[in-house]
Amino acid sequence: MGNRQEKDSLGIVEVPEDKYWGAQTQRSLENFKIGGQKMPVEVIRAFAILKKAAAFTNRDLGVLEDEKAELIDRVTGEILNGKLDDQFPLVVWQTGSGTQSNMNVNEVVANRAHVLQGGSLTDEKKVLHPNDDVNKSQSSNDTFPTAMHIAGYQKIVKKVVPALQRLRDEFAAKADTFSAIVKIGRTHFMDATPVTVGQELSSFVSQINHGIKTIESSLDHLSELALGGTAVGTGLNTPDGYDVKVAEHIARLTGFPFRTAENKFEALAAHDAIVEAHGALKTVAVSLMKIGNDIRMLASGPRCGIGEYSIPANEPGSSIMPGKVNPTQCEALTMAMAQVIGNDTTVSVSGMSGQFQLNVFKPVMIYNLLMSSDLIADACDSFRKHCIEGLEPNRARIKEHLNNSLMLVTALNTHIGYDKAAEIAKKAFKEHTTLREAALALNYLTEEEFDQWVRPEEMV
Amino acid sequence: MGNRQEKDSLGIVEVPEDKYWGAQTQRSLENFKIGGQKMPVEVIRAFAILKKAAAFTNRDLGVLEDEKAELIDRVTGEILNGKLDDQFPLVVWQTGSGTQSNMNVNEVVANRAHVLQGGSLTDEKKVLHPNDDVNKSQSSNDTFPTAMHIAGYQKIVKKVVPALQRLRDEFAAKADTFSAIVKIGRTHFMDATPVTVGQELSSFVSQINHGIKTIESSLDHLSELALGGTAVGTGLNTPDGYDVKVAEHIARLTGFPFRTAENKFEALAAHDAIVEAHGALKTVAVSLMKIGNDIRMLASGPRCGIGEYSIPANEPGSSIMPGKVNPTQCEALTMAMAQVIGNDTTVSVSGMSGQFQLNVFKPVMIYNLLMSSDLIADACDSFRKHCIEGLEPNRARIKEHLNNSLMLVTALNTHIGYDKAAEIAKKAFKEHTTLREAALALNYLTEEEFDQWVRPEEMV
Amino acid sequence: MGNRQEKDSLGIVEVPEDKYWGAQTQRSLENFKIGGQKMPVEVIRAFAILKKAAAFTNRDLGVLEDEKAELIDRVTGEILNGKLDDQFPLVVWQTGSGTQSNMNVNEVVANRAHVLQGGSLTDEKKVLHPNDDVNKSQSSNDTFPTAMHIAGYQKIVKKVVPALQRLRDEFAAKADTFSAIVKIGRTHFMDATPVTVGQELSSFVSQINHGIKTIESSLDHLSELALGGTAVGTGLNTPDGYDVKVAEHIARLTGFPFRTAENKFEALAAHDAIVEAHGALKTVAVSLMKIGNDIRMLASGPRCGIGEYSIPANEPGSSIMPGKVNPTQCEALTMAMAQVIGNDTTVSVSGMSGQFQLNVFKPVMIYNLLMSSDLIADACDSFRKHCIEGLEPNRARIKEHLNNSLMLVTALNTHIGYDKAAEIAKKAFKEHTTLREAALALNYLTEEEFDQWVRPEEMV
Amino acid sequence: MGNRQEKDSLGIVEVPEDKYWGAQTQRSLENFKIGGQKMPVEVIRAFAILKKAAAFTNRDLGVLEDEKAELIDRVTGEILNGKLDDQFPLVVWQTGSGTQSNMNVNEVVANRAHVLQGGSLTDEKKVLHPNDDVNKSQSSNDTFPTAMHIAGYQKIVKKVVPALQRLRDEFAAKADTFSAIVKIGRTHFMDATPVTVGQELSSFVSQINHGIKTIESSLDHLSELALGGTAVGTGLNTPDGYDVKVAEHIARLTGFPFRTAENKFEALAAHDAIVEAHGALKTVAVSLMKIGNDIRMLASGPRCGIGEYSIPANEPGSSIMPGKVNPTQCEALTMAMAQVIGNDTTVSVSGMSGQFQLNVFKPVMIYNLLMSSDLIADACDSFRKHCIEGLEPNRARIKEHLNNSLMLVTALNTHIGYDKAAEIAKKAFKEHTTLREAALALNYLTEEEFDQWVRPEEMV
Repeated sequence: MGNRQEKDSLGIVEVPEDKYWGAQTQRSLENFKIGGQKMPVEVIRAFAILKKAAAFTNRDLGVLEDEKAELIDRVTGEILNGKLDDQFPLVVWQTGSGTQSNMNVNEVVANRAHVLQGGSLTDEKKVLHPNDDVNKSQSSNDTFPTAMHIAGYQKIVKKVVPALQRLRDEFAAKADTFSAIVKIGRTHFMDATPVTVGQELSSFVSQINHGIKTIESSLDHLSELALGGTAVGTGLNTPDGYDVKVAEHIARLTGFPFRTAENKFEALAAHDAIVEAHGALKTVAVSLMKIGNDIRMLASGPRCGIGEYSIPANEPGSSIMPGKVNPTQCEALTMAMAQVIGNDTTVSVSGMSGQFQLNVFKPVMIYNLLMSSDLIADACDSFRKHCIEGLEPNRARIKEHLNNSLMLVTALNTHIGYDKAAEIAKKAFKEHTTLREAALALNYLTEEEFDQWVRPEEMV
Repeated sequence: MGNRQEKDSLGIVEVPEDKYWGAQTQRSLENFKIGGQKMPVEVIRAFAILKKAAAFTNRDLGVLEDEKAELIDRVTGEILNGKLDDQFPLVVWQTGSGTQSNMNVNEVVANRAHVLQGGSLTDEKKVLHPNDDVNKSQSSNDTFPTAMHIAGYQKIVKKVVPALQRLRDEFAAKADTFSAIVKIGRTHFMDATPVTVGQELSSFVSQINHGIKTIESSLDHLSELALGGTAVGTGLNTPDGYDVKVAEHIARLTGFPFRTAENKFEALAAHDAIVEAHGALKTVAVSLMKIGNDIRMLASGPRCGIGEYSIPANEPGSSIMPGKVNPTQCEALTMAMAQVIGNDTTVSVSGMSGQFQLNVFKPVMIYNLLMSSDLIADACDSFRKHCIEGLEPNRARIKEHLNNSLMLVTALNTHIGYDKAAEIAKKAFKEHTTLREAALALNYLTEEEFDQWVRPEEMV
Repeated sequence: MGNRQEKDSLGIVEVPEDKYWGAQTQRSLENFKIGGQKMPVEVIRAFAILKKAAAFTNRDLGVLEDEKAELIDRVTGEILNGKLDDQFPLVVWQTGSGTQSNMNVNEVVANRAHVLQGGSLTDEKKVLHPNDDVNKSQSSNDTFPTAMHIAGYQKIVKKVVPALQRLRDEFAAKADTFSAIVKIGRTHFMDATPVTVGQELSSFVSQINHGIKTIESSLDHLSELALGGTAVGTGLNTPDGYDVKVAEHIARLTGFPFRTAENKFEALAAHDAIVEAHGALKTVAVSLMKIGNDIRMLASGPRCGIGEYSIPANEPGSSIMPGKVNPTQCEALTMAMAQVIGNDTTVSVSGMSGQFQLNVFKPVMIYNLLMSSDLIADACDSFRKHCIEGLEPNRARIKEHLNNSLMLVTALNTHIGYDKAAEIAKKAFKEHTTLREAALALNYLTEEEFDQWVRPEEMV
Repeated sequence: MGNRQEKDSLGIVEVPEDKYWGAQTQRSLENFKIGGQKMPVEVIRAFAILKKAAAFTNRDLGVLEDEKAELIDRVTGEILNGKLDDQFPLVVWQTGSGTQSNMNVNEVVANRAHVLQGGSLTDEKKVLHPNDDVNKSQSSNDTFPTAMHIAGYQKIVKKVVPALQRLRDEFAAKADTFSAIVKIGRTHFMDATPVTVGQELSSFVSQINHGIKTIESSLDHLSELALGGTAVGTGLNTPDGYDVKVAEHIARLTGFPFRTAENKFEALAAHDAIVEAHGALKTVAVSLMKIGNDIRMLASGPRCGIGEYSIPANEPGSSIMPGKVNPTQCEALTMAMAQVIGNDTTVSVSGMSGQFQLNVFKPVMIYNLLMSSDLIADACDSFRKHCIEGLEPNRARIKEHLNNSLMLVTALNTHIGYDKAAEIAKKAFKEHTTLREAALALNYLTEEEFDQWVRPEEMV
């Protein structure tokens, strides 16, 4: 494969002849051989949306010719359809403003448009100029944060929230199905008073519901778009009314209530919206960590653990222990949530590091927001499908535990007082007897009273 | 000072004779000699409120005698007035349910009430029983999270938000006062196109405003109270209607819209409300870190830094460099915010570690929420009063920077295109000339055009 | 109590007449009303050591009169004896170089010396000048990091390591005592092949041993002292040979191998030594979190948990559930470790935030290093004394679990292969039989073979 | 492409007919559609090494036939050569023991060996059994941690340390080249006493040197191998002497001093070695964050910043501001370090979450260790090559700053005392004069004295 020569303000660069990108993309490719984590495709697609919206707005406001706007529309359409996915080779670890990915898009749109118009990539002059046309009324400093918000918002609304809802619904269905089964509760990992299986699972439903609310609260800030601020927030080089109109185009194109940011200076200089949104994801990760742990512990055994739940045996669990089955979905879920919790530290460190008119930790912030979103959504779907849908209570084990528990004594508090009740429990524990035997031996109540007062099914 | 003997279900304990606490408090004091961080007084006061509300509700629902309710009302009043502050000696690092602090309150209320009634601390039988009366219809497992929410909610609403508002208002006033001063903008820490001082400061106003919104979004979950769930969330040993009514009493007593938690199982087993609220504080800490850093850098110098702002000289800055003045308020602010950011990790680790029907990382969670709240509020007040109120732009320096900047060239983009504009800027940089000189030398525009197009005051 | 007037280069300040501190301390007290966390006394004492060493070195090198050196020696001796503890009222959240605490020490030493010499605090001229004499050959920028290293090093060596060793020794003793008890192992929280109680506990011994090594590795960097670098690392205003000699004095005074830092510029500008040391503490916190969790889960029950270990019942566990006993020491330990893990984030954020010749997050860094050290040491001692010393295996429960386990089948792998062994385990699980019954039913081996091959006591 | 049928203890699975993997790999592929982050190839290669070593050891100890050992040797050789890279499709988010990746390797080795022997993938019986032969004397529980240590150790020694050394050497060379240039120092971001460029850069050399030491300290724990512990640490189903011998084989094959872990129980149940190693990487990330920030700030401008250093202009900096050049390598470096700092939280959360005989957060831990290692090494190389190699001091700017600075007054302390020196500095600042003018006006010294005492070149 040969090369062609491309030029930017620093000089000439060799670019693979079959690629649409130009000099600046190529420079970034050569200067940032770090890690290998690619700029997420969701960011590229968000750029396509905003470039399209900018072209329309520029056209509407009379600063871009119709033909140019139409060309930009056409190529960004191709990007959205995934047709040009191999034209965006840059990594996350580039300039902190994401300028190079913005220029990657600008270059690809300009060059691809030229080819669509019948031109050749080696023509000196192209039908579109990457900066003067494709980037018209824009700066990397306002396009990249706009792309961050579009990509993040959509990922959360289209993928994270539905996956959480599906998991919640599955827990709610199971809670309903098993609402009548009374089992021992546990506090401090120790036997406590009873709950129903339905109640135990309803706690997860409520956690996820609150988590969804937390996530949804963070969408308002995410729906503010920096576009129209250009280089430093002042909107230099944009026509009048551009910021509001371009946000309307984006809202129309995506179907989501995006609007222009109240304060463009903040929108470039700080990414508290991302910090807030990731903080919401982290709150959900904390919930899911608890849920995954509970399920794994309640399903532990099969003979020497708690064993009150059964979960599906999806694969042989061990390469050495024959017949072993493990809570592997809980493990994948909790590992993924550990990543999300750590990513939150990355996002905080990045968010606090903006300076003056620009935060230059943009790529790492959106990379983590999208990674955490995918991890939560995918892990929830996997956990639901391969674990919770097949969850079953082990009624025999549940009953055995319930009958053995000493904490049913709590029901006696209101009849004989805490101190005497404690005496009964201690005696039963020490002498390995039932509560009933200990209670009667101490003469604090009659058999009839005991049987009437200590009824697990009425303690829930 | 002598001791008296106190008894609990494990036996007899020696307690200092001048203290109202009982056996369980004393055991905790002896068994947990860790750290030294006391259970925050705000938690103790919140307990006083909820014990009072529980007594009223128990009385209203006919399960507690009027006299007992009145006594509890009286002693909790004393706690709220700070009269009994030396009666709560326990540390944060105790049982993870906070049971020992709950019992500390129960014991102090019971014993103090007995003394108020004319009894003696050495009487075998007291007028109130710590468990059967003061703790009636309660468990540590629902009272401690209730105290967490009451203490956290009030701290945020009464202290954190007002301090943030004051700082925001001060920035807004300064932004207004200095709205006409045009200065160089900076992106990537490099010279960029101009902004006004007012615009620069407005970014902080907007960050704080968004931060306040984030914090306020987290209040809804915090306003849910666990009380009425008792040991495991089922509400065992509470009279009908208790949970709703007790929350109403708490709302009335505090003047805040507390309500009973929808799902009591979650309210005991998980503290996502605290995770969410602390996440909001952390988002604000991220904002304040950026703000503190910007101020310190913009005020740097006095001769070899950026020096565009002056801040008050509150104290000699150096023990060795005479006449040195340092941005000490920025330093205190950013150190405090580093603590808040770390505390968020503590809260996440704690929040994810609940098991089954109870999270037993309660004390550490509320300790961090309150510490972070105080740090944010106090640091904001100190920073505002001792730094921002005295902030002044250095007009001479600002003008010098503005006139020197090469990035004013950006205004030429729409007239001569990005490429030629870049050529001008590069030439001026290389040859240490002004933009104007370079532009004219290159013959890309006339003197009149330059003067008409490149006007910093129209670029903001 | 009246005031007296004190003066510094900014003017006059009112100071309580019974205090030795001067104008700069008083200004800090008034300007930094944040949080309330005091500068740790260990830092003040470390300052006393280094001021003493500096006075000796200055005297030895002929730049300080003998009488002045002797006076400084005398007052720093009083500080070390705790006699002046109420003279250091400043908080952590002050100037980030700790200048104000350095000046607090300088002022107290100068004024107290003057009084010891028979002077009055209101005398215009004092026998010692806080800057010119007490701070001679010093700057806050090199004294504060020196105090950080002295305080941190001593805390770790004198308190943290011994507490870890005691806990390790206790686990080792228990491992030895119970080395013959065979119990079921657990992987993925599921039944696995057997281990002995001794082996299970030896894992903790090994973790703590490795942790101690990690901590000790971090001491080398901590033993480097910044003193002699003065303001920016160049050692301006110090006599020749001062840095090496002052470190020798400190080494002699403390009995620890402190030495002058190889590179003073780093020693002021970065605190990687603190980051490294806290990272080591965090590694230990991670270990202790695992240990605390294991103990709590292995001791769970008493009737519906794993219940293989018993731990002491130190206090009534519940305010509502009579007779409940909880693993409270595990809870205090793990809460404290959550704090240490979060503090590590604080230290990282602070450590990365140095700029040019100075890191100005010094106070928050040493505050966290000392807090985490105390939490680890105190929590280990408490956990050891009140939990591990009383740990007992429940032999009946252990035996029951061992006999029930299906994973003993693993011993058959080498005789009949993994696939057939898996078939046996699955059959036993499905049909609720013993392994032996399933194995014989499948005819894969004889009774004699089973009994010879499947012997738990030979599987450890 | 068609499928073939594969079988494991749970039944039959369809596998693509051109793949060597078997049923368990396929199940994992279908059951864990999470994220997309693949198990790092370094882990697969480390598995190849340990499988080879295990085969040799099994052969040496007489439990594996020569032909089988030779076959395993051959296929693992192919894996090490990268020939089979497309045979390992599993993601990180699988079972937390990494069992599925261990089985992936076992299956590929067994099937590929069969084909190499002329067999067909559809033959019922293969020449090697994945569990009984390839996994002989092994468990996932000891092989996966062994692979973690081999992969992590090699990555650090072969890639991270050399990259750090190269960066350090470049800074050292620059420090040497520019050792004679005196410049203003800065503390609190404010002008301070002078340093040389060489001294400023030497601070980075010293930080990196200390960082390398910290990393190297962590290698000792990483060099301990779990292999030989099998399922729970007891070494069940391994021949005598296996653990020591297999570690020797691994040491020989890799050329690194691997040895068998002292305590196999710890080696499976906890991964403190990974926590410690990642903590060391995090310490280095903290250093690099400081270094990257300093360079970007010292090179700020070109006209309105500090501007004392020039760094290479590698690419056009802005899509809107023509001629702008940005410190993009600093930005990539600091973004990458933010990721490493967050990854450390992930590793801590994962490390603390082990339970009983197994930590099941293994894949996420090694994934983060390797990611952080690559980020540090790649970012250091990129930063060195594209930024530091081209770093140049701006002598004119440096001189201008130095001459302007008021902090040169510090040199007068030892001659006229701190108070008078402060008076001079304040007067000069207030009246916008030079120090010299202010000093003479105050009559505190003569012209000759001033010129003799205040000499920047003697203050470094």
